Amino acid sequence: MANDTILLDHGSGGKVSHALTRDLLLPVFGNPILNRLDDGAVLDIDAGRLAFSTDTYVVDPIFFPGGNIGDLAINGTVNDLAMCGAEPLYLSVGLILEEGLALGDLKKIVAAMGAAATKADVKIVTGDTKVVPKGAADKIFINTSGVGRIPEGIDVGCDQARSRDVVIISGTLADHGATVLTQREGLTFDAQVASDSAALNHMVRQILNICPQVSVLRDPTRGGGGNGVE
Amino acid sequence: MANDTILLDHGSGGKVSHALTRDLLLPVFGNPILNRLDDGAVLDIDAGRLAFSTDTYVVDPIFFPGGNIGDLAINGTVNDLAMCGAEPLYLSVGLILEEGLALGDLKKIVAAMGAAATKADVKIVTGDTKVVPKGAADKIFINTSGVGRIPEGIDVGCDQARSRDVVIISGTLADHGATVLTQREGLTFDAQVASDSAALNHMVRQILNICPQVSVLRDPTRGGGGNGVE
Repeated sequence: MANDTILLDHGSGGKVSHALTRDLLLPVFGNPILNRLDDGAVLDIDAGRLAFSTDTYVVDPIFFPGGNIGDLAINGTVNDLAMCGAEPLYLSVGLILEEGLALGDLKKIVAAMGAAATKADVKIVTGDTKVVPKGAADKIFINTSGVGRIPEGIDVGCDQARSRDVVIISGTLADHGATVLTQREGLTFDAQVASDSAALNHMVRQILNICPQVSVLRDPTRGGGGNGVE
Repeated sequence: MANDTILLDHGSGGKVSHALTRDLLLPVFGNPILNRLDDGAVLDIDAGRLAFSTDTYVVDPIFFPGGNIGDLAINGTVNDLAMCGAEPLYLSVGLILEEGLALGDLKKIVAAMGAAATKADVKIVTGDTKVVPKGAADKIFINTSGVGRIPEGIDVGCDQARSRDVVIISGTLADHGATVLTQREGLTFDAQVASDSAALNHMVRQILNICPQVSVLRDPTRGGGGNGVE
């Protein structure tokens, strides 16, 4: 197999996997916590409440108008934390790569993850890479988990919703889902649609600063969830 | 497709996925934090240092002498946290299920995860389930991420290793790796081998109680890592 694709050896834990981590992942994700490359990350955290969330991204296709599986995987978990009223701080990244994946595609995805993490102001502090034989996975699956700090006085959650609450919607609905579906199924619309995947934590912070009694926050790009739509 | 297998609809985010979460996952994993089923878990944590780790499990075969992918996924991340000197507290579980996976197999795996979590004294507090079309994944992949508290005065890590340090090994080497390899490749040995996958956090706590100046802790079932051996 050409040496510009992912080999089983890239997940072996030996020299080739270390080279992938050192040459492809750390230049984009690196920070003093991640660079230690221990079994886990050690974080200094203030006392209080933490939010903890996980999501796995299996979107098909992996590249689509407005983004790719990489920035989606960062934005999705950043938003899950923000939807708990938390300031997202730290993310983990778990990659499942299919043998034969083009290294160029992986680089594009990793670059998008790095840019999205910078924009959302979160650090990738721990990670894991597995490679499975060709045909045992569909190109790339990404799990991101994250922790964030919930400021005092903030308490959001579905159990807080009350009849007659006002619902505020931050953008048009279904842009992301419609984009992925049309790309996957080869459908066409009159209007061009593009994914509006974005980190909403800064927007949520502004909302909570002005109105800390917000009861429920939901990420508009969530909903369907599975079947690779996400 | 028979209704005793996983369907794409089990990952749709609709009624069928909620039934899977409610009827199959919550009875085993349920606790007051997870049962809220919000976008993430809210954790009350003391001030100090936290360990945060992630690992994805793609082991083939998913059932092997001594365990299955489920208890391996719990023990592996519990151990990654313990190897940071932390008391593992909370885990996330991200499932990727292949359409057509037997529900009976999923139940066995989930039961093993629940039993392993109880034994290690950790709570599963947040999770995610994705279903991908038949052929797009190999039966089941599991990501577990976790957070744990590092007691004051404990500082372990590879950067602490010194020439002439004493190395203590807690058991025989390679039992788990040899078991999985022989099962996958149909090899036979004179001796029967079985995986010794286990949570080591209680053992590590005892060691650190007696000898807090331990410099490096490593999980013996780790090493190879990729290629589904893990």
